[in-house]
Amino acid sequence: MKIARFSHGGAINFGILDEAEGGGTELVVLNGDPMFAGFDTTGERVPLADATLLAPVIPRSKVVAVGKNYQDHVAEMNTGEAPKEPLLFLKPNTSVIGPGDRIVRPPQSNRVDFEGELAIVIGSVAKNVPAADAASVIFGYTVANDVTARDLQASDGQWARAKGFDTFCPLGPVIETEFDLASATVETRLNGVLKQSAPLSDMIHSVPTIVAYASAAFTLLPGDVILTGTPAGVGPMEAGDTVEIEISGLGVLSNPVF
Amino acid sequence: MKIARFSHGGAINFGILDEAEGGGTELVVLNGDPMFAGFDTTGERVPLADATLLAPVIPRSKVVAVGKNYQDHVAEMNTGEAPKEPLLFLKPNTSVIGPGDRIVRPPQSNRVDFEGELAIVIGSVAKNVPAADAASVIFGYTVANDVTARDLQASDGQWARAKGFDTFCPLGPVIETEFDLASATVETRLNGVLKQSAPLSDMIHSVPTIVAYASAAFTLLPGDVILTGTPAGVGPMEAGDTVEIEISGLGVLSNPVF
Repeated sequence: MKIARFSHGGAINFGILDEAEGGGTELVVLNGDPMFAGFDTTGERVPLADATLLAPVIPRSKVVAVGKNYQDHVAEMNTGEAPKEPLLFLKPNTSVIGPGDRIVRPPQSNRVDFEGELAIVIGSVAKNVPAADAASVIFGYTVANDVTARDLQASDGQWARAKGFDTFCPLGPVIETEFDLASATVETRLNGVLKQSAPLSDMIHSVPTIVAYASAAFTLLPGDVILTGTPAGVGPMEAGDTVEIEISGLGVLSNPVF
Repeated sequence: MKIARFSHGGAINFGILDEAEGGGTELVVLNGDPMFAGFDTTGERVPLADATLLAPVIPRSKVVAVGKNYQDHVAEMNTGEAPKEPLLFLKPNTSVIGPGDRIVRPPQSNRVDFEGELAIVIGSVAKNVPAADAASVIFGYTVANDVTARDLQASDGQWARAKGFDTFCPLGPVIETEFDLASATVETRLNGVLKQSAPLSDMIHSVPTIVAYASAAFTLLPGDVILTGTPAGVGPMEAGDTVEIEISGLGVLSNPVF
């Protein structure tokens, strides 16, 4: 099931993507946020083409992210071996934007990179979750761009600022609640040119391992998001570019660059 | 004016500290959160001794923190020069606890340190605030303990986990809206023994500079908190310890260690 958060006619709602009777796609409008209110439909349907999709989730607490989680990206960064345990960092919820929203390159940086990633959306309060039970606390999955001011990442040392600027966490287009990542791939295209392409199975630390590890440090709250790392091929974005990240089964997250 | 968040008789409210008629201190109970609802009193008064103080603010978005902001602490850490710009990192709001709450040493770490600090409480949406206008976005100040798993801080490299565990951000006891830090000092005592003592004027980057710098990266939201760094004297806490951090004019933040 694909869940979207969208604006239409001045209202913001959640909806389930469904085939329309005459063809095309419609949003089955929900009462409230399904993460908290369940899948209670209002009876209203909105053509997808008439809706503006928003970030499908706004984390109440945090975006946890994992660094150096694909071997080929570790190699391209030339900053040492892949860490034995997931390398966690945080992005603030103020960095989250939705599909189609502008990524704003800040004046502090001369190099702002895309990083296409799978994002886990947490659905329930989670602390010390065993890897075997990770699925029970996952609401679904979406696509993320872990936008990074590459120059400041190096000069600051700590990554909070370089990865935490406003607009540096595009999420969307939807949350898929029944995603099977075993055969899925992540691809990033800049102005239509393929830049990153990898099977999600290339992750060094798997989704269950990451959820277990993160929840052993932080209590995860419903709506928290975990980014799972990026494969090789990261590179800079310039004003006027369009960056698209596609994960098979989850859709395309497209953002213009300002 | 000193603002507390407290529980009493099963309810959680905000209150203003005031002298009681017969001596002692009372809480003048407020309607709602004064950061959003203003200082609208209910007419009720609760003796401070009958109330349980809670963290005076729960950040909706983020705790921003500044590393290496006192020269003597930079020296004791032996990790290079003080950075030319404020070194920002993030602590999640799930790490926040209140006065008297237990700091829980996680099994992942063999060394959990106290770090006594001044905390800025942001009162309004703030982006690209000039240093000269910083006061206009500050709601008040409180005391913080930037609890740190010192071993994991070094081994992880990124500080998010080492400084982000649940219970690693005690805040309180109150928010002072009229604090003058020019002549104030921060002191940390472990089981009554003085461990840290410094004038707040020893900060390398001042409060206005920090607010300007942080707000140039992140949109700050009402209730966001900024920790301003710790002076020399940091050290480990063991189970059964009590750690007290006092800032003159703001009170004492005391927490038992588990």
